Amino acid sequence: MAWAGLRSISRRTFSTAADRRHYFPSDFPTADFTLVGQEELLRFCSDCLLSSGAKPKHADCVARVLVEADLRAVYSHGINRLKMYADECRTGAVDVEAEPVVERERAGTAVVSGRNALGAVCGEFSMSLAIEKAKTHGIGWVLARNSNHYGIAGHYAMMALDHGLIGMSMTNTSPLVVPTRAKNPALGTNPIALAAPTSGRDPFVLDMATSAVALGKVEVAHRRGDKLPLGWSVGPSGLPTDDAEAAVHSSVTGKGGLMPLGGLEENGGYKGYGLAMLVEVLGGVLADSSFGREVRTWQSPLLEGEGADEGANLGQTFVAIDPDFFMPGFPQRMDRFVDQMRGLPSAEGQPAVMVPGEPELNARREQSEHGIRLHDSLVESLHRLAEECGVPRVGLL
Amino acid sequence: MAWAGLRSISRRTFSTAADRRHYFPSDFPTADFTLVGQEELLRFCSDCLLSSGAKPKHADCVARVLVEADLRAVYSHGINRLKMYADECRTGAVDVEAEPVVERERAGTAVVSGRNALGAVCGEFSMSLAIEKAKTHGIGWVLARNSNHYGIAGHYAMMALDHGLIGMSMTNTSPLVVPTRAKNPALGTNPIALAAPTSGRDPFVLDMATSAVALGKVEVAHRRGDKLPLGWSVGPSGLPTDDAEAAVHSSVTGKGGLMPLGGLEENGGYKGYGLAMLVEVLGGVLADSSFGREVRTWQSPLLEGEGADEGANLGQTFVAIDPDFFMPGFPQRMDRFVDQMRGLPSAEGQPAVMVPGEPELNARREQSEHGIRLHDSLVESLHRLAEECGVPRVGLL
Repeated sequence: MAWAGLRSISRRTFSTAADRRHYFPSDFPTADFTLVGQEELLRFCSDCLLSSGAKPKHADCVARVLVEADLRAVYSHGINRLKMYADECRTGAVDVEAEPVVERERAGTAVVSGRNALGAVCGEFSMSLAIEKAKTHGIGWVLARNSNHYGIAGHYAMMALDHGLIGMSMTNTSPLVVPTRAKNPALGTNPIALAAPTSGRDPFVLDMATSAVALGKVEVAHRRGDKLPLGWSVGPSGLPTDDAEAAVHSSVTGKGGLMPLGGLEENGGYKGYGLAMLVEVLGGVLADSSFGREVRTWQSPLLEGEGADEGANLGQTFVAIDPDFFMPGFPQRMDRFVDQMRGLPSAEGQPAVMVPGEPELNARREQSEHGIRLHDSLVESLHRLAEECGVPRVGLL
Repeated sequence: MAWAGLRSISRRTFSTAADRRHYFPSDFPTADFTLVGQEELLRFCSDCLLSSGAKPKHADCVARVLVEADLRAVYSHGINRLKMYADECRTGAVDVEAEPVVERERAGTAVVSGRNALGAVCGEFSMSLAIEKAKTHGIGWVLARNSNHYGIAGHYAMMALDHGLIGMSMTNTSPLVVPTRAKNPALGTNPIALAAPTSGRDPFVLDMATSAVALGKVEVAHRRGDKLPLGWSVGPSGLPTDDAEAAVHSSVTGKGGLMPLGGLEENGGYKGYGLAMLVEVLGGVLADSSFGREVRTWQSPLLEGEGADEGANLGQTFVAIDPDFFMPGFPQRMDRFVDQMRGLPSAEGQPAVMVPGEPELNARREQSEHGIRLHDSLVESLHRLAEECGVPRVGLL
């Protein structure tokens, strides 16, 4: 049965602040921001890493991944992480000389050792290998061990799109999420990303933490003095809290923390907890890297100066799938599927239905053209970083 | 860093109703139930399907899958579905003569056509093929198209455990879930299942719908006259409702329905919506079967007599992974991971932390030994079905 409502839906346009609130990622700044050009941000990012000891090729790789996150308004994984990466290069927590290497390999599978190189370097290496394997064998499934924080998981999934492939990536991360019924954090925000090519539509890009919300959203609520919805965080006793103050600090101190997707147990929070475990099983546990509580604690930007002195030894999963090994016409069917969802009538008073990846791509289009919006406080911290690294300040538009 | 709390944790024992409430699936009956033996339930199930035209081998296969669900106290996918399957056999909605066939095949990948056979038959056929491929190639990734409702996704994932492999399965289903911001259902409860072998512990078995809760839970609240937590369901206008009456009927009429995992948009409901789409992308869309709104509407047990007259043409995913192709020692690391989580201190006043699959296995152990608890109302409906099918009533313990 063909869906009667099938039709081509053109790109939406956005001009008002209300548009942006509805159709851009929720972190997109509407006040107190400064505009920075994409090229200049890449230059600055690269310079800071170079001055911290990274090789030029590695500095460029990390810069691309961080700036891609900012372009997409996923600021929690953008240039606000730069200081952490630069610190890790300087202290030797990350090995700036190391290159990832294939440790074990069969036709469609491989294990890469990141050898404690920068996470993005290990990620691009591993995903490229998965893509190569998928072209020959239909599926490429590559694990990385001894890796580090690699930025947005979606970046690696999206690498597959250039080859007409489906891409997936997942990573474990430092414990911030409190399992259902537990008191303290024992799992990371462990993201799952899936990118799928379309024919005449924007690609499908799901890139989601398996926690209810990102730590960044709790921090924003804290800055604004807002109460949290019940289901985002637990306090030091392990019980749900609406107190952003307690939640922010608990995430730093390792007492209390974020709730898994679903929130309360009765609302399905145990499923988010299960998904976070799934990411570990197919990553850290399968790759024989650190997992769960073993993963190094989070280097919070709130704890200035306390840089890590060892690698994170993360476990990461990279999968590429050639849809032509299954049934021809996949991109055209993706168009129909995306159109189905975007064409659904909205609930009473609700804005239009979106599909995964749409808000980020809306922000990317605007920011590629008009410059990237960085919060003034972030720009201030970049100026301090410029001084630390002895590189020219980031130039503003 | 090894986790200091690492220790072997023995099996828990349960004797009180409170134990069962905390450590068994929430649907486990504590009152108004009748006990039935596992063998007798298998006999009854097989008889009804045989009398409806199914071949003996197929009837046995479906019986095993349904009774496995009841044993695990996942009653929403157990023998309460039997009438639907029997009806589908009788009306020709399902082809009782058909056998699944491999339609396209490469080394590690395949597409199976279920040829509109019973879903469990197609599922076991496809997962067996994935397992065979994983043994040779490390990964077996098999899609089934033209399949039907196949019961609990976890059954197929668990098939891999007998071979020391990791198993995954996903399926699309009839639209019941309302995408974030939309008014009407457009996606199924699209479950994701992952089973992973351990060494000295119970296996890890995640089997979760990507909706906040199952339709069955809304129906239970409705029977009891309880208000729903906000985040389970939306009413006919598409807005969240605490009215179980509206929610139950909306799920039947196709107006309103279940919310995706995460519930409200601000609590991450768009992630559950994204996961439901992921299941479609890797299943229905990739396999070129029906997807999203195209899938036949749900044959609700509330709509007695209105049997379907066509197959559901579902798309299903079956993945098997041989952990030894990656790093040796996986089952031992799984033990450590499971112990990490189960050994976490509980939040104030909370029962002990569990891992995915634990509540179902607790119920399975008790019911294998003492009989399966079936709600009296379910037993009544089985007696009616016995009459319809002309087979002996299910014998009670």
